[in-house]
Amino acid sequence: MSGRGLFITLEGGEGVGKSTALAHVASRLGDAGVPLVTTREPGGSALAEDIREVLLAVREEPVDDLAELLLMFAARAQHLARRIRPALEAGQWVLCDRFTDATYAYQSGGRELPARWVQQLETLVQGELRPDCTLLLDAPVTLGIERARGRGDLDRFEREQVAFFERVRATYLRLARESSGRYRVIDAGQPLSAVRAQLDVICSELLACENGDRQ
Amino acid sequence: MSGRGLFITLEGGEGVGKSTALAHVASRLGDAGVPLVTTREPGGSALAEDIREVLLAVREEPVDDLAELLLMFAARAQHLARRIRPALEAGQWVLCDRFTDATYAYQSGGRELPARWVQQLETLVQGELRPDCTLLLDAPVTLGIERARGRGDLDRFEREQVAFFERVRATYLRLARESSGRYRVIDAGQPLSAVRAQLDVICSELLACENGDRQ
Ligand SMILES: Nc1ncnc2c1ncn2[C@@H]1O[C@H](COP(=O)(O)OP(=O)(O)OP(=O)(O)O)[C@@H](O)[C@H]1O
Ligand SMILES: Nc1ncnc2c1ncn2[C@@H]1O[C@H](COP(=O)(O)OP(=O)(O)OP(=O)(O)O)[C@@H](O)[C@H]1O
Ligand SMILES: [Mg+2]
Ligand SMILES: [Mg+2]
Repeated sequence: MSGRGLFITLEGGEGVGKSTALAHVASRLGDAGVPLVTTREPGGSALAEDIREVLLAVREEPVDDLAELLLMFAARAQHLARRIRPALEAGQWVLCDRFTDATYAYQSGGRELPARWVQQLETLVQGELRPDCTLLLDAPVTLGIERARGRGDLDRFEREQVAFFERVRATYLRLARESSGRYRVIDAGQPLSAVRAQLDVICSELLACENGDRQ
Repeated sequence: MSGRGLFITLEGGEGVGKSTALAHVASRLGDAGVPLVTTREPGGSALAEDIREVLLAVREEPVDDLAELLLMFAARAQHLARRIRPALEAGQWVLCDRFTDATYAYQSGGRELPARWVQQLETLVQGELRPDCTLLLDAPVTLGIERARGRGDLDRFEREQVAFFERVRATYLRLARESSGRYRVIDAGQPLSAVRAQLDVICSELLACENGDRQ
């Protein structure tokens, strides 16, 4: 073990291929001998998965946007305390399917809550912790929706309008421009083989960096 | 209708008699013809009651204190949006079994989280809204625990140590001193008849105030 593990997040709209990409990256890093935890948000611990259910349930009562935002960060606080921080501190890498950038994209971009509310909660819950690297899977909204709809029942977010998802996508792309050091944008509209090739390059970079650090 | 209704909260430790007092106050105010909503926290709407279940469940995974705090305010945001604010704006009085003072008492006093975290979330979720009047049922910790234990299975909070409940009680008493204009402290160690007599006096005051306002 050589200090803290890398914290890598996967982001993007509905059905763009985040979970598919995560499995590929996990297998590449695993092959390279990296000690790895794969997880997802909202969720990633028993309580956080309970909160996920509350968040995604399709319900009659309209969900207040701020209540939704606070639920996201409640799940995140638990996930960080129980899984992410302990793994990173033990030198493991953490690969997480969605993280706080999704909150900027969905609750601020999509729902149009003030970004400073997200910032305030990010500081409260994360302190200084930010992902070391974020892989943004980007594709036209309609493509992702088609891929996601192939999988059956839609959750509360998947039932949103196209305009909502366009705001989500635009927010992600803005974040990628503003934090270009941390972001890698992947054209997820390509065939899977091309996406995988792009992910392989990124994995090699991450492994090289990390080996560099260790010397 | 003459403007906003009064927002009255009932507070105190486990089993001191909050729900019993609420029923009595509701019946007195109802007799006086006050349009009234009675409710409770955490909970008070469909989603907020789901969050209550997540919060109170006895679970193997330790619950992170900050996750607990955020869940409390998520439930509160929903409750405010769906029930409390609409009722107050329609001129109804709202009688609520626990509110944000319980968060100061339990999550800051009991769990020892910084009070400024509670303040920050209070501002985010409530804006300027504060209860008009808070009835604090105060009794020795052991008395309340005895009353509560009479009722069977204990939830996650009821399983805390006496020292926790002593911090909760001390925090409530400090809040009552600091906001003496809004607080009425009731000696809940007395027999129910004496508690009811004290509540009757408070109800008369509230009704008199309110009638004064209307003239
Ligand atoms: N580049 C691609 N080309 C074609 N199909 C793909 C591609 N990437 C993923 N898919 C397929 O699209 C579907 C959605 O992929 P996946 O579940 O990985 O997306 P996701 O972003 O994790 O979705 P969600 O937002 O619902 O979690 C799956 O059936 C997957 O096999
Ligand atoms: N002044 C009193 N004297 C004796 N018994 C009382 C008194 N007030 C309430 N009780 C009894 O104590 C028990 C607990 O009361 P109650 O449920 O109102 O407390 P509570 O504060 O709402 O409890 P919880 O914190 O669990 O919600 C009930 O059985 C009630 O009848
Ligand atoms: Mg997925
Ligand atoms: Mg009660």
